[in-house]
Amino acid sequence: MNFLEERIQKDGIVKPGNVLKVDSFLNHQMDIALIDRIGEEFYERFKDKKVTKVLTIEASGIAMAYAVARCFGVPMVFAKKSQSVNIDGDVYVAEVESFTHKNKNRVIVSKRFLSEGDHVLIIDDFLANGCALQGLISITESAGAVVEGLGIVIEKGFQFGGRAIRNLGYHLESLAIVESMDAESGTVVFAEQAR
Amino acid sequence: MNFLEERIQKDGIVKPGNVLKVDSFLNHQMDIALIDRIGEEFYERFKDKKVTKVLTIEASGIAMAYAVARCFGVPMVFAKKSQSVNIDGDVYVAEVESFTHKNKNRVIVSKRFLSEGDHVLIIDDFLANGCALQGLISITESAGAVVEGLGIVIEKGFQFGGRAIRNLGYHLESLAIVESMDAESGTVVFAEQAR
Repeated sequence: MNFLEERIQKDGIVKPGNVLKVDSFLNHQMDIALIDRIGEEFYERFKDKKVTKVLTIEASGIAMAYAVARCFGVPMVFAKKSQSVNIDGDVYVAEVESFTHKNKNRVIVSKRFLSEGDHVLIIDDFLANGCALQGLISITESAGAVVEGLGIVIEKGFQFGGRAIRNLGYHLESLAIVESMDAESGTVVFAEQAR
Repeated sequence: MNFLEERIQKDGIVKPGNVLKVDSFLNHQMDIALIDRIGEEFYERFKDKKVTKVLTIEASGIAMAYAVARCFGVPMVFAKKSQSVNIDGDVYVAEVESFTHKNKNRVIVSKRFLSEGDHVLIIDDFLANGCALQGLISITESAGAVVEGLGIVIEKGFQFGGRAIRNLGYHLESLAIVESMDAESGTVVFAEQAR
């Protein structure tokens, strides 16, 4: 097991309905040293790529994307979940459905912050059905930018999102892939990863 | 002018209705080196306080709070803006009104992540009428924790939020206090700060 899988085993809580709560260290309270290490690990996995921007979606991906962007020395952009009065009309838009919140969001990125010539590393905390990631891919490609890779902290391997994105030919790296979990016993089984 | 005021002069955009857009470096695209420096500056201003947690509110405060928490070596907690199905019922709640989005949000923090004995530094990117900050203060004190201070990146000095919080006796530090701005000429005037 890697450092993240160990931490999930130790502090993650399995709830009925295939919900994995990691809110004590990852997406409500944040363990700063862990987030720093996640940033370094993604840098290791993608350092051979040309990366000019790190892209994520608010809110819980922001800290991880920031940690990754620091390692690459590039700006981080986070997509916003609804039309703010402070956003210009000149935006890239994608519609994404949230598994967690069971609703649809318009996701937007200002055209000023992604453009042709950008090489984008997309970072997010969770991957389940992949709707958020597909939205970020769509926005990146609408800008004429290149998706250099996608880095996910925790992938639910038993849902179809990761497979769909890999099948499309994207380079997707997940630090932990949950193969199965059981709320009654509290166990989490991770997929073996060839490294 | 300090480093942040200089950056606002250079890259901030004034829009009608006292809107200051800093989305090219602070709250949509993020300049990582700038955010790191913001973290260090807040550490300098609050390092004599006993701080056990850094608290912010999603979304744009997260990166700054993370940078501050790294300097203090403590966890960061971000308040969430709506009841997620992944949040336990056992939460502290505050109602806050958003000036930017002109709506009301329920803001919540799980009771597991703030408790009596915690000494909290509250960090946010903007302070206008202060509703978000008041919500975070209310949540902190509901937990029986101590508000050690509040750090704001940009305060709109011509609105009443900052004054109200200082009048209540809290130690509030803002890195830039906008005294006035003019959309036609694009000028921003900062309040002199005694340091």
